[in-house]
Amino acid sequence: MTNIIISGACGHMGRVIADVVAGRQDCTVVAGIDKFIDKYADFEIYPSVSECPVKGDVIIDFSNPSLLNDLLRYAKQNHTPIVIATTGYTQEQIDQIKESAKEIPVFFTFNMSLGINLLVDLAKKAVAVLGDQFDIEIIEKHHNQKVDAPSGTAIMLANAINEASGNQYEYVYDRHAVRQKRDKKEIGMHAVRGGTIVGEHEVMFAGRDEIITLSHSARSKEVFAVGAVNAAVFLKEQPAGLYDMSQLIQ
Amino acid sequence: MTNIIISGACGHMGRVIADVVAGRQDCTVVAGIDKFIDKYADFEIYPSVSECPVKGDVIIDFSNPSLLNDLLRYAKQNHTPIVIATTGYTQEQIDQIKESAKEIPVFFTFNMSLGINLLVDLAKKAVAVLGDQFDIEIIEKHHNQKVDAPSGTAIMLANAINEASGNQYEYVYDRHAVRQKRDKKEIGMHAVRGGTIVGEHEVMFAGRDEIITLSHSARSKEVFAVGAVNAAVFLKEQPAGLYDMSQLIQ
Amino acid sequence: MTNIIISGACGHMGRVIADVVAGRQDCTVVAGIDKFIDKYADFEIYPSVSECPVKGDVIIDFSNPSLLNDLLRYAKQNHTPIVIATTGYTQEQIDQIKESAKEIPVFFTFNMSLGINLLVDLAKKAVAVLGDQFDIEIIEKHHNQKVDAPSGTAIMLANAINEASGNQYEYVYDRHAVRQKRDKKEIGMHAVRGGTIVGEHEVMFAGRDEIITLSHSARSKEVFAVGAVNAAVFLKEQPAGLYDMSQLIQ
Amino acid sequence: MTNIIISGACGHMGRVIADVVAGRQDCTVVAGIDKFIDKYADFEIYPSVSECPVKGDVIIDFSNPSLLNDLLRYAKQNHTPIVIATTGYTQEQIDQIKESAKEIPVFFTFNMSLGINLLVDLAKKAVAVLGDQFDIEIIEKHHNQKVDAPSGTAIMLANAINEASGNQYEYVYDRHAVRQKRDKKEIGMHAVRGGTIVGEHEVMFAGRDEIITLSHSARSKEVFAVGAVNAAVFLKEQPAGLYDMSQLIQ
Repeated sequence: MTNIIISGACGHMGRVIADVVAGRQDCTVVAGIDKFIDKYADFEIYPSVSECPVKGDVIIDFSNPSLLNDLLRYAKQNHTPIVIATTGYTQEQIDQIKESAKEIPVFFTFNMSLGINLLVDLAKKAVAVLGDQFDIEIIEKHHNQKVDAPSGTAIMLANAINEASGNQYEYVYDRHAVRQKRDKKEIGMHAVRGGTIVGEHEVMFAGRDEIITLSHSARSKEVFAVGAVNAAVFLKEQPAGLYDMSQLIQ
Repeated sequence: MTNIIISGACGHMGRVIADVVAGRQDCTVVAGIDKFIDKYADFEIYPSVSECPVKGDVIIDFSNPSLLNDLLRYAKQNHTPIVIATTGYTQEQIDQIKESAKEIPVFFTFNMSLGINLLVDLAKKAVAVLGDQFDIEIIEKHHNQKVDAPSGTAIMLANAINEASGNQYEYVYDRHAVRQKRDKKEIGMHAVRGGTIVGEHEVMFAGRDEIITLSHSARSKEVFAVGAVNAAVFLKEQPAGLYDMSQLIQ
Repeated sequence: MTNIIISGACGHMGRVIADVVAGRQDCTVVAGIDKFIDKYADFEIYPSVSECPVKGDVIIDFSNPSLLNDLLRYAKQNHTPIVIATTGYTQEQIDQIKESAKEIPVFFTFNMSLGINLLVDLAKKAVAVLGDQFDIEIIEKHHNQKVDAPSGTAIMLANAINEASGNQYEYVYDRHAVRQKRDKKEIGMHAVRGGTIVGEHEVMFAGRDEIITLSHSARSKEVFAVGAVNAAVFLKEQPAGLYDMSQLIQ
Repeated sequence: MTNIIISGACGHMGRVIADVVAGRQDCTVVAGIDKFIDKYADFEIYPSVSECPVKGDVIIDFSNPSLLNDLLRYAKQNHTPIVIATTGYTQEQIDQIKESAKEIPVFFTFNMSLGINLLVDLAKKAVAVLGDQFDIEIIEKHHNQKVDAPSGTAIMLANAINEASGNQYEYVYDRHAVRQKRDKKEIGMHAVRGGTIVGEHEVMFAGRDEIITLSHSARSKEVFAVGAVNAAVFLKEQPAGLYDMSQLIQ
């Protein structure tokens, strides 16, 4: 049984995590941290981690970059493993996270979805097998309110493929108005935007009369919660160190 | 029974047309026009249309823009309907084609595929029902030797949708490096290139928690031959005038 | 103001409908019917429609085929218009629904989504153009808790296509263990089940080297609830008769 | 540089192999074996392998089961590695092939497509990571002349997944007329048939609000030629033994 403390317990993702944990037999939420109160929660909520009297096996953090200092200080003092799923950190904060991983187990990834991390892994495997006989294109689709393009996950996919093949690829975002054939050393990146699409990623390998497509479709933000809870259960058993989804996928 | 004369009979498309006609009960090839000779053809081949002694019900032309004058002169003299599937005409030649349609039935389109022309029609219908509550994106995929992007067919699709909704849309080819939300008045255009893909076109309408996708996949250039033969059978029965696939789709 | 009684109020769809109604100014829920009790509902719940003392302007039913008799008896006795959004009825029950529409306004459709109803319309158009040169297959995907297969919407699609082409098709659900070629007069029906998929429907038209695919993906059940509430507000003002989405789309 | 002898050089697949080799830098065709003569071939053609004076590094055989004896005798005498891509062998002949692999390197597989074999590998990897939290369904699409269903490749995929997870799955071909929820221990198998589709295979893993799809689309039989040439280049460097695509994909 893994006892979990949720930091950011009353935010949208915090509630989804509590819901995911409630549906499992191998873990439970022992406390929540949030400045707001959720009257429907069936665990105690404390305004800050330093005021939380309950000990947990792991912290899952889906809160705000501004709370990082408090969280890391608490985690190191109590030697509590921490799953960091908050995004938007500065490079300095990322360095701080990595530094803390020398003392405690820290799980840190840009994308908590098990499926997306599997997709990255399969794409690397595919490029290793298919070599340069197949052209690679990445198509991602997101809702019409997303401001960045391509998505961080699309870049994560492209980088993983690129590193797995000796960093030989250049990313191409626009082919319009350039009358020339595709270069073998391109990865085409396409950012489709529309409606309320949560997140779709497709890696296409097109060869001579055959096409292999690996795709992932997230239908709600719950997929990140599922990933975070899996990470927490995994992290409880680990020694100090920096972990990400690749360890869960082995 | 429709008696067909194939202009450009020994080129790749000419042979495919002969093959398609051979598989049908309602038409036959009575003569071919080509400067080359195809010894396997089971009809006579003449070096030019003016030297062809055989009368046909319809000419299908898949040859070369330089032969247009000869073809139109012959067609008007013999009052023979003509399906023009050659591409690469100048604007002056296109005007000449339209002018000839006052005297004889002329079938002229930028894309001979029945499926693509249906796709255009369905997309126009969809945009009329869905209105501006749905975001529109067009994704096309072609082989890595294609030099133009987006494809002429993708532009044909976008233009048809745009005209059907009061020309309110702007086409967007690249969203990378621009941190802003999608504008409602955009049609996103994505040109995917890879392998030997013959031609795929997809129109996506993304709304609030629902997505409608209309797509067409051409698996060989035969689809253009099938369209041309359908056009020929149709054209035989028509009075003088300019026709395209939209008349076949009603 | 339209006063709505929700039959199946404590099921998942019943709750979503209550939520959608709560967000509108032109309607309100006056009672719920369900054998379970929802302590969070802000309206009374009665175990059966015959025990419900509250009068409503319209009933929205998202319950179970077994309750049809009770619902129709009540609706006819009280002359209450009824929106029937439950699926899985037998042909006999469907006849019973149509019969009731002679006495009261009945809104009956296998799918409450605007997009799906457009898809039906486009599929009918496509089959009219493509004729019997293209093979038709329908693939639907739903979550792993769905008990009926194929979905009511898949059947609605197949029936619409079949009627549009002279009822010449037979539906085929299984090709395994039968060593024979596909018959031209088949529509293949495939019911894919997995995870939490809300509802995907794809109609494929496969011809000679070209494939046209029309598809719809619902990403949440709100799509159906929005349609059902729109139908209820519409139905309140109608005379006795059988209605469906085509009246709302015009 | 790998010097290749093509057995069955003038058949459809033999020509495609010569064409594929011509497009590569790392191999060349040094001789062809065929009872017919191809005047366009830019290598010598000999009527039988025993009459071929040219030594090659590898033989690729896409001929006929009746030539197996001659080929294996030659290969063993000259200690030439052999890629066997011919199909339709008896069990006795298959045993003979395996026996020969004790003396020389033999590459033998039921499916020469690199992409399909990669797909099998990725699907096994995916099921190992995703475990039983995801439902698995396989959809295959083929032309309307195919008599068997599901395809051999779909069964190969299902078997590979099943073996990788302790043979816990049952294959389900039809869900129609059975009103029950999907069992976790099912793999749904769907055989879509239509038009001239060469072969498409899709493995879907559907979990809680996320879907991973791995798919392969063959656009012509050339994909088998590409696989055979890759196998030849690989086989040149191997010791005696029996090889298949799984060794190429590691």
